[in-house]
Amino acid sequence: MTEHDPLGPPASTTIATIANDVGVSVATVSKVLNGRSDVAPGTRARVEASLDRHRYQRRGRRHPSGHGRIDLVFHEFDVGWAMEILRGVEAVTSLAGVGLAVSQLDGAHRPPSRWLDALLTDRPLGVVFVLCHLAEAQQQHLRRQGIPFVVVDTDSATSAAVPTVGSNNWNGGLLATRHLLELGHRRIALISGPPDVLCSRARAAGFQSAHDEAGVAVDRELVRYGGFSATAGHEHGLRLLRLSDRPTAIFAGSDIQAMGVLRAARQCGLRVPEDLSVIGYDNLPLAAWTDPALTTINQPLRDMAGIATQMLLGLARGIEPATSRIDLVTELVVRESTAPPAHPR
Amino acid sequence: MTEHDPLGPPASTTIATIANDVGVSVATVSKVLNGRSDVAPGTRARVEASLDRHRYQRRGRRHPSGHGRIDLVFHEFDVGWAMEILRGVEAVTSLAGVGLAVSQLDGAHRPPSRWLDALLTDRPLGVVFVLCHLAEAQQQHLRRQGIPFVVVDTDSATSAAVPTVGSNNWNGGLLATRHLLELGHRRIALISGPPDVLCSRARAAGFQSAHDEAGVAVDRELVRYGGFSATAGHEHGLRLLRLSDRPTAIFAGSDIQAMGVLRAARQCGLRVPEDLSVIGYDNLPLAAWTDPALTTINQPLRDMAGIATQMLLGLARGIEPATSRIDLVTELVVRESTAPPAHPR
Repeated sequence: MTEHDPLGPPASTTIATIANDVGVSVATVSKVLNGRSDVAPGTRARVEASLDRHRYQRRGRRHPSGHGRIDLVFHEFDVGWAMEILRGVEAVTSLAGVGLAVSQLDGAHRPPSRWLDALLTDRPLGVVFVLCHLAEAQQQHLRRQGIPFVVVDTDSATSAAVPTVGSNNWNGGLLATRHLLELGHRRIALISGPPDVLCSRARAAGFQSAHDEAGVAVDRELVRYGGFSATAGHEHGLRLLRLSDRPTAIFAGSDIQAMGVLRAARQCGLRVPEDLSVIGYDNLPLAAWTDPALTTINQPLRDMAGIATQMLLGLARGIEPATSRIDLVTELVVRESTAPPAHPR
Repeated sequence: MTEHDPLGPPASTTIATIANDVGVSVATVSKVLNGRSDVAPGTRARVEASLDRHRYQRRGRRHPSGHGRIDLVFHEFDVGWAMEILRGVEAVTSLAGVGLAVSQLDGAHRPPSRWLDALLTDRPLGVVFVLCHLAEAQQQHLRRQGIPFVVVDTDSATSAAVPTVGSNNWNGGLLATRHLLELGHRRIALISGPPDVLCSRARAAGFQSAHDEAGVAVDRELVRYGGFSATAGHEHGLRLLRLSDRPTAIFAGSDIQAMGVLRAARQCGLRVPEDLSVIGYDNLPLAAWTDPALTTINQPLRDMAGIATQMLLGLARGIEPATSRIDLVTELVVRESTAPPAHPR
């Protein structure tokens, strides 16, 4: 395993250099580098500032034998979605002979600091974050420890310095909405994910752009934000379908959410796709097995996870990725749940 | 952390005792204990025999700090099912501050030996096996290394020495079949999992027992074995529904498989439950969202996983479980996919 980092310290920067610069012992610098808590805050700050100035990057301690381990951190274990990511990551780690540790943050998009402490203690080869990422200070801390990290998708704009693998959500929103407009729908509802999640806003922007292209106005009453769950799809679906001027098509935020919309349609006595078109998002394996089978947007979750993991294993060997931001292509998958509206307006 | 094992070695058994007994150096015994490969096979065998005779149990090496980590090993990442297990395990490990490593065996029910070598190198606190287990020699090897393990469910009868958490599959088969018989069904099909998986056979036995209770003969043509996938359910469903004397009810091996049966029914122009009753197995979250919502057998996967993990963390602290085999209760959950047959026979 070779280490090469064009932004790394000059070869002459050692722990002794830092200790000398700050005026503390080598042991103290070592404690700071190892993330130990028994260092006075003021001393730690001075040591960290010096490490920054010298752009000191710690050489990763490898496991004594074996090929080490990466950490996969989910913001939560979303049904279906998380398993696709896990499969994509595991396919790469098992081939590389690298272990895989998994954790989740109970829905938080930023790990608590005690979580980071535990991580540093265990010294993984690197970390893949899914729908969550580190605060700037946490990022610096990890970089200083020489632990690389990659983000799969993002909940908010991540700085260009963080390698990120996502998919083109704006394009996904555009493709789904274009498909419905081309079928003749004019009152199309959108149930997106939570508005504080960037992918939800990107898809909503794609939804708007498709309308703009077609010269069709978006009725704001038909745009809803909610969770990605079946329950959220069911609740929003019922509210939308009980409107006096109900939509003829619903674009859901996930396949699971679309299952809730299908339930709502059935409860309202509406047939899909004859009376209502429904389109999902993700193209999970189960999307082919709902009744009717879901038209959806394929988000290549396994590929996203696999590429992120390959990037990470590269970084752990000191190989900088050619680009720090990769968005995979989203595609329309037409199945049975979409059709022209019964009464085109 | 205290270590207490009533079957452990007398306090006087040390590595030196073993070395003296076999007539090798302490270093050689140490190498065998550490799973190193640079020991001649004959020497290793003699050392291991002596370790057995002395019932030597190695004290687990803990991580230098932090609370260690357990390994969760799946035979494969089954859609839906595996995520429930993962959630159940993670709920316990995160509370205990213990890390969680995940791997899968590509469908194998027994880990390859290189997998075991990698595991020993990493020295987890213990291992939870899901639908897979170790060969007897592998079990002995892990015991000698002081790494406890627990099995969730089993693919074949596991010796009483291995702590196992499962659910009552026979009872699940009985409850599902009784429900259909009580509704008036007399031609009931069973699509079970693979016949080499014990839970499939246990459910089939419950299916038979319910028929015996009711004095109804089982038509062997209606009993099928296959995978737990939607595709398997779809294929078996089509074959069963195209029989000249088709079943009026199908008991599927999993909720996912039942989704395939629902698709087959629709393709044959049969309404569920009016023309065909369908009952699933597992009670995954999605079972409430299929169309119609699935009547199913609740298999408490999260609880099974959680209890197995608690057992394992106990064993890692030297606490023997009160019982080595726990079967959780399965329950009938009635939703919309079952009803009396249109033409009771």
